[in-house]
Amino acid sequence: MDAYLTIVGKREVRQYQQRAIPEAVLTQILEAGRASGSSRNRQPWRFIIITDRVRLRDVSTSMARPANISGAAAAIVVAVANARAAFDAGRTAQNMMLAAWTLGIGTCPNTPMDEASLKTALGLPQEMVVPTVLSMGYPAPGERRPLRKADPAGVLKRINRLPLAEVVHREAYRA
Amino acid sequence: MDAYLTIVGKREVRQYQQRAIPEAVLTQILEAGRASGSSRNRQPWRFIIITDRVRLRDVSTSMARPANISGAAAAIVVAVANARAAFDAGRTAQNMMLAAWTLGIGTCPNTPMDEASLKTALGLPQEMVVPTVLSMGYPAPGERRPLRKADPAGVLKRINRLPLAEVVHREAYRA
Repeated sequence: MDAYLTIVGKREVRQYQQRAIPEAVLTQILEAGRASGSSRNRQPWRFIIITDRVRLRDVSTSMARPANISGAAAAIVVAVANARAAFDAGRTAQNMMLAAWTLGIGTCPNTPMDEASLKTALGLPQEMVVPTVLSMGYPAPGERRPLRKADPAGVLKRINRLPLAEVVHREAYRA
Repeated sequence: MDAYLTIVGKREVRQYQQRAIPEAVLTQILEAGRASGSSRNRQPWRFIIITDRVRLRDVSTSMARPANISGAAAAIVVAVANARAAFDAGRTAQNMMLAAWTLGIGTCPNTPMDEASLKTALGLPQEMVVPTVLSMGYPAPGERRPLRKADPAGVLKRINRLPLAEVVHREAYRA
């Protein structure tokens, strides 16, 4: 799958098919997270992969949008050493979500609502930080799916984002 | 370029050729940042693209590793609304770095050492946060460059990262 199209065409998917994601595919997604760069190559992350339905439901109760997790085929909890690692967490999460997208799998980052209870449920030390839980699965009928063939320029025209001129400043910031 | 190989093959590049990055290529990189998902689609980021040599040197004095910026062909300052947006900053930065990689351009995220002076130099409001400044350019001779053809499994064996078994936990965390 074309790399640039994958990057600009990645949309969040929140409704999933129940069919399981093959183990080899989950491994490819996790490997993309492991391969991510990080500040001083500290790799401050640990990934908890969850596919057990009871545990998915259990984890969902700590989340702002429980249905995203309880209805997912799998979830990856991204836990990092401290709050300063949130930027690196975003890098590795994006790697995993883009890798999933190339493999036909939709994802969405989810913010914990009650991080302390989430950490207790997963046996995570309280000093760790969970910036996101990625919910994932094959997209349900009607959901967005990866575009195999499309013009990236056309995709960039259609996306629900601020115009480039509003986001980009040249040489210095002008409010 | 293959998407999965781009993601797992992306390495940080800190030494750049001086040749300018064409305007159309810079736009493609910035578009990949604009296209990124963010919490509630808030798009909390603004990007300052810097190509002026005097200004690159000026900005470099606020950075932990000045040479990465002063020697870059261009830099993209990623400024966000507040510290909670650091995770989303990581997502958009990774999008831009991967897009650059597919276009043959090496990048590296740089952490500001003196964020207050950096914001003053760029005219950024002090309440904004700068999680990273991406330095970029065509890789200097001897530097890593994007692999056009390679076996991702082979790449994943060679990278300087913790083994998967150390990073991934199943269903719950086990220290």
